[in-house]
Amino acid sequence: MKFGGTSVAGAEQIKRAAGRIVAAREAGNRVVAVLSARGKTTDELVAQAHEISARPVAREMDMLLSTGERISCALCAMAIHDMGHEAISLTGSQAGIVTDSSHTKARIIDVRADRIRQALEQDRIVLVAGFQGVSTASRDVTTLGRGGSDTTAVALAAALHAGVCEIYTDVSGVYSADPRIVPDARKLAVVSFEEMLEMAASGARVLQLRSVEYARNHGVRIHCRSSFEDGPGTLVVSEEETMEQPFVTAVTHSDAEARVTLTGVRDEPGVAGRIFTALAEANVNVDVIIQNEPVGDDQLADLSFTVDRDDLPTAQDEIAKLGDIAVRIRAVDQIGKVSIVGAGMRSHPGVAAKVFQVLGEEGINIEMISTSPIKISCVIAADRVADAVRALHAAFELGADAVRPEDAAGSDHTSTVAG
Amino acid sequence: MKFGGTSVAGAEQIKRAAGRIVAAREAGNRVVAVLSARGKTTDELVAQAHEISARPVAREMDMLLSTGERISCALCAMAIHDMGHEAISLTGSQAGIVTDSSHTKARIIDVRADRIRQALEQDRIVLVAGFQGVSTASRDVTTLGRGGSDTTAVALAAALHAGVCEIYTDVSGVYSADPRIVPDARKLAVVSFEEMLEMAASGARVLQLRSVEYARNHGVRIHCRSSFEDGPGTLVVSEEETMEQPFVTAVTHSDAEARVTLTGVRDEPGVAGRIFTALAEANVNVDVIIQNEPVGDDQLADLSFTVDRDDLPTAQDEIAKLGDIAVRIRAVDQIGKVSIVGAGMRSHPGVAAKVFQVLGEEGINIEMISTSPIKISCVIAADRVADAVRALHAAFELGADAVRPEDAAGSDHTSTVAG
Repeated sequence: MKFGGTSVAGAEQIKRAAGRIVAAREAGNRVVAVLSARGKTTDELVAQAHEISARPVAREMDMLLSTGERISCALCAMAIHDMGHEAISLTGSQAGIVTDSSHTKARIIDVRADRIRQALEQDRIVLVAGFQGVSTASRDVTTLGRGGSDTTAVALAAALHAGVCEIYTDVSGVYSADPRIVPDARKLAVVSFEEMLEMAASGARVLQLRSVEYARNHGVRIHCRSSFEDGPGTLVVSEEETMEQPFVTAVTHSDAEARVTLTGVRDEPGVAGRIFTALAEANVNVDVIIQNEPVGDDQLADLSFTVDRDDLPTAQDEIAKLGDIAVRIRAVDQIGKVSIVGAGMRSHPGVAAKVFQVLGEEGINIEMISTSPIKISCVIAADRVADAVRALHAAFELGADAVRPEDAAGSDHTSTVAG
Repeated sequence: MKFGGTSVAGAEQIKRAAGRIVAAREAGNRVVAVLSARGKTTDELVAQAHEISARPVAREMDMLLSTGERISCALCAMAIHDMGHEAISLTGSQAGIVTDSSHTKARIIDVRADRIRQALEQDRIVLVAGFQGVSTASRDVTTLGRGGSDTTAVALAAALHAGVCEIYTDVSGVYSADPRIVPDARKLAVVSFEEMLEMAASGARVLQLRSVEYARNHGVRIHCRSSFEDGPGTLVVSEEETMEQPFVTAVTHSDAEARVTLTGVRDEPGVAGRIFTALAEANVNVDVIIQNEPVGDDQLADLSFTVDRDDLPTAQDEIAKLGDIAVRIRAVDQIGKVSIVGAGMRSHPGVAAKVFQVLGEEGINIEMISTSPIKISCVIAADRVADAVRALHAAFELGADAVRPEDAAGSDHTSTVAG
């Protein structure tokens, strides 16, 4: 079971999380729970660091930030004790989360869960501080980067062969579209890892991309559900487990992107490589990339790509540093993206055509297109994103009124915890 | 170097502490610094625990409270990096502070400082989270109880054979009396471990009793000085190092005690033992104890003792649980204590008589007396404590105007750091 920051924000929420953990234990399961830092704790710690230093050294940033999850775990263990159960809180290091030495964005390289197994044998509930580990070489505290607690939970579920990894958040599951934009968006009973990956990559914020990747690679079933409501959420499982592959599963979106266009780039080997290497080294995540065929005698090409809007200034700086690589460089910062995701698309080649038709009928100009076997993304103006989401959601009949075969099956996927 | 809570309270204070550490390094010393939690951090964490649980389980309390010092160390390491030096922060566990398993009041049983030595070899400044360790048996985080960071500092100084253990606080040294009560109180250049122990036990709050004991047992020179002012503070050293033993060194006091008197206690073996065992198990610290000779045929004795005023309700509860052990039990909660401390008393038998005479002339009633070879304590009414301190300080000529031989010597005790 994993509880996010809003699920442990105050004393009441911690007691509620403790109650859920105890209920799972009393239902006969062995329980390991991963906790995030409380509400704004991490932000406050970051602010303290920036009061001291403009560029805090990464090793110490990890030492600092890792305290937040420990506080959550210690407090939750106290609450569980008061409910009459034995609980023990462990740091990432004590829990055996071994990482590389990339401070602030470490990767898990091993899970040595002996101490957890031993505590479970002793009939204890185990609470693990999320988001952190210990580096294998220098035995320093490391953190896993944004969304790291989800990854901690999935990694432990894999190592312990847990029946399911329950991720508790402030939303009740994964929806066919953002319910704030599409009021009749439907909670999905089941999605496949592949769909969830595409959704996370294209704007759905329920689960962290990296944790879904880890779950797919290790076959960990995720149950994404609400801390504040009962009832099942959304199961994320391997494709074989989904009953019938839906034609289209969900519409996702992002309205905080920016586009950079380089006109007149010399079409010679290495130019694109230099650009995207520079951006990667500056931690700028490039999303959609399009390069057209070079035209004319001088073999000049046009290259466009999108980045997070927040990263645009960094991207522009990095490109400027590369010197004379294009005739002209333009940037537009009010860019959005709408995507259609569905495992069933593989066998339905007409989906792309329908997407273009729907957006065209709405008068929405498609600036760039990016596809995968189970996803179609269209880069559009930011101010037309909501219209595009509503139109596509309606056109593909994803709403709550449209009953589909897997709904009935999905209601059988009740919660089970590491047994 | 050890910095207390007020010395790392805000960003400015942390930078100032970092500056002192860097200056010591640049003066050619190898530096290990122990930091306390920032300002009110520990109180806030305790409050969070009490929001969750009326009786938080001790193991989890330690996991919770140990985060405060880690935050201080990480932030200070960032500040030192910005000053161009390599610094590394270590948890108590990483620093090799090995303790027993008595959570919230663990005792240090070993210091395995290999990692610190290694970092010093690599020319790094080492910052260690105070107040905490790791239990030898279960590898759990432990804390050392109140004032534990002083003990961490002294224990590390002993293990590393440091030249001196500098304890930085918000006062500039040890005084001949509390300057808030006696305006002409004098900062002492040198005191012996034995004197410092008696002073700490009888109300001086500059250094924690336990850390002084540890320093005496391991021969660690302590330099107690101000974070906020330059200039030497007070050296605490072995008696052989003090130039000439003063007749009387200081007047200390406490005005927050309570007295319990049991009248008609059966004078049979074991009764006093039962009382004080019960109090010790309830963590009530008993200070002065007096039992008079049993009188009359029924061999009933009277027994009085003092405790911290805050502990009085617990003490009364514990005694009530023992049942019918005395004819009558009385408690008075407005009790104070004034003490005269000085290594030279050993060879000046007239000190006690002078104390009684001075207090008598002030019309202050002495309720109980407790002596050691270098201390005389008088239990008096709480509201007469300030008068008693002023009268004794004047009578023994401890003021700043009274120049004494060791003052000149003391000014040569300039600060030196682990070399």
